[in-house]
Amino acid sequence: MRDSAPVEFDVRAGGGARDYGVVVGRGLLDRVGAYAAAAAPGVVRWIVIADDTVAGLYASRVAASCSPDGVDVLTFPAGESHKNRAQWADLTDRLLAAGAGRDAGIVALGGGVTGDLAGFVAATYLRGVPVVQVPTSIVAMVDSAVGGKTGVDTPAGKNLVGAFHPPAVVLVDPEAVGTLPRRQRAEGLAEAVKHGAIVDADYAREVGRQASALLAGDVSAVERMVVGSIRVKSQVVSRDEREGGLREILNFGHTLGHALEAASEYEVTHGEAVAVGMVLEARLGERVGCTRPGTAAELKALLEAVELPTAPPPGLDLSRARAFLSSDKKVRKGRPRFVLLSELGAVDDTGGRWARPVDDRVVSDVLESA
Amino acid sequence: MRDSAPVEFDVRAGGGARDYGVVVGRGLLDRVGAYAAAAAPGVVRWIVIADDTVAGLYASRVAASCSPDGVDVLTFPAGESHKNRAQWADLTDRLLAAGAGRDAGIVALGGGVTGDLAGFVAATYLRGVPVVQVPTSIVAMVDSAVGGKTGVDTPAGKNLVGAFHPPAVVLVDPEAVGTLPRRQRAEGLAEAVKHGAIVDADYAREVGRQASALLAGDVSAVERMVVGSIRVKSQVVSRDEREGGLREILNFGHTLGHALEAASEYEVTHGEAVAVGMVLEARLGERVGCTRPGTAAELKALLEAVELPTAPPPGLDLSRARAFLSSDKKVRKGRPRFVLLSELGAVDDTGGRWARPVDDRVVSDVLESA
Repeated sequence: MRDSAPVEFDVRAGGGARDYGVVVGRGLLDRVGAYAAAAAPGVVRWIVIADDTVAGLYASRVAASCSPDGVDVLTFPAGESHKNRAQWADLTDRLLAAGAGRDAGIVALGGGVTGDLAGFVAATYLRGVPVVQVPTSIVAMVDSAVGGKTGVDTPAGKNLVGAFHPPAVVLVDPEAVGTLPRRQRAEGLAEAVKHGAIVDADYAREVGRQASALLAGDVSAVERMVVGSIRVKSQVVSRDEREGGLREILNFGHTLGHALEAASEYEVTHGEAVAVGMVLEARLGERVGCTRPGTAAELKALLEAVELPTAPPPGLDLSRARAFLSSDKKVRKGRPRFVLLSELGAVDDTGGRWARPVDDRVVSDVLESA
Repeated sequence: MRDSAPVEFDVRAGGGARDYGVVVGRGLLDRVGAYAAAAAPGVVRWIVIADDTVAGLYASRVAASCSPDGVDVLTFPAGESHKNRAQWADLTDRLLAAGAGRDAGIVALGGGVTGDLAGFVAATYLRGVPVVQVPTSIVAMVDSAVGGKTGVDTPAGKNLVGAFHPPAVVLVDPEAVGTLPRRQRAEGLAEAVKHGAIVDADYAREVGRQASALLAGDVSAVERMVVGSIRVKSQVVSRDEREGGLREILNFGHTLGHALEAASEYEVTHGEAVAVGMVLEARLGERVGCTRPGTAAELKALLEAVELPTAPPPGLDLSRARAFLSSDKKVRKGRPRFVLLSELGAVDDTGGRWARPVDDRVVSDVLESA
């Protein structure tokens, strides 16, 4: 692969929406306008939404690419705590005050919070206007910007309100990772390892081998990793746009991960929680007998290489985690369900179902012994 | 047509969503559960949302039809002023508190406000759960329950936030009109006359002939009228699910109607404003030369028969109405657009476009002389 040529993937949007492209290439931040115009030709006015941190780094370049005179940039305070309904309403009101009509479009410039929040604003503004996702964190590049999920948190939990609103196009400039703190880079690599774990063992192992370059923000290494992850995610999402079936495999590590994240009151980040969740769910699979022995150990080693935790933090209240387990969005008829591997790089498909309940005692056992 | 057998229409939902049925029949309020289960077999738990007025009249019957033990009924205060983001958030929080999961579904029981509000709750709850629309007002039966539009108002205007979320099924029991005040019945007939005006002159004239029976709430007359209107609306919506083209004809009377409604601070109801808007937009068409002379006068007579106003209320500030005109959602590049008739029962199609700008002076003239 040449680093300099943008790599493009096509994603089926489903829901009758136009399929969309995901483009990965260096310097795309300066070409957002051209790609956006080609992907959503009906839009006569773009408006950039970014948190105040990312806005300071990249908004002027992106705005200048949308129009020679620049375009409006709406900012909000950085951080997951601002991904809520009040911030959604405020951004909506500012769009209305700016006179944005149905022929406006949103550029969501930032990490996962911005993609979800600005995406939900776009999904609901005048019953929906186009959104271009421009992810600047690794988590958003490899995971949240692709797939059309948008939403905000409520006091009861994360992402409890939202909509499927496929983007017009996703533009990934790997150079943006240069400004990320190391812990945020590591966090993003959890989803990359997950993509390998469920579909492609070689890719998972390659992420492990490239760990130090990735953590240092080496642009070539990041670019290859992002391309590898988006290849997996775009294929899975294209085969199941709205989470009826195959897309469930993307939840590997997430059932226990979400519970640990919530039980820690989000002190443990999403990526860190998913890392722990993957190791524990691999052990769950080994205990249940569907996962090849040694898989959890190999996963653990890969995740340690990218500086991610592989056990719950000392002192975490596991009974709280168990309580969150039974209130998970994916609960069906009161029982949490788990995606289990058959081995590194493959999910166990039990009779065509990608997630299944596991005996409570086994779950408790694996949690306690971690 | 036999009054006793339910009449069914199929509507294309578009957006990849399942097509849905609209069923019209007496006594359907007691059969909501069976129809809902057939239309959304994945739902294991239904929750009814209704305003406190409608809840007192019909919620227990509907809830009992959903489960032998009844189901949860969430109520909110009646009235357009409660169709807002705060009420949407509150209903969402109560669903979360009740433990409703992705396998829950919403029954929106009531008039247009409830359909829009509960529909938007369903559209965004856990990124979308099924909704069954059970309209109990004439406006909702003939218009708002069919087509998948959901949303709430903001301080800047009506329906400025929302989503397209096609219902699983729409169940219309014409007996519900028995409890409506006469002014609300009249209001609903504006949309029925509109359906005739844009597609079927015979149907428009039949609504006029049946005026006294319809205003009195005669169930047979209402049933025939609802069937006639839904036939028109379901055909138009099926050919253009998301308002790219033909669906625009449903906005006949609405460009000026919305402006008058807003300028009156919603003292003039939506149906009343649309009635006035239709007469004025018919005159606009006559002035522009595309509408057969005499059309506005015939429309005016039909609307007077169903006890609807045909001129702005005395004292209304027309300059305010003009200001609202230029902030309408349908404005493109700053100019309001109008659907114009060629004659009663047919829309003028100028080069494949269903709405067009009209010279400001002509619009002002028609407004002033009304």
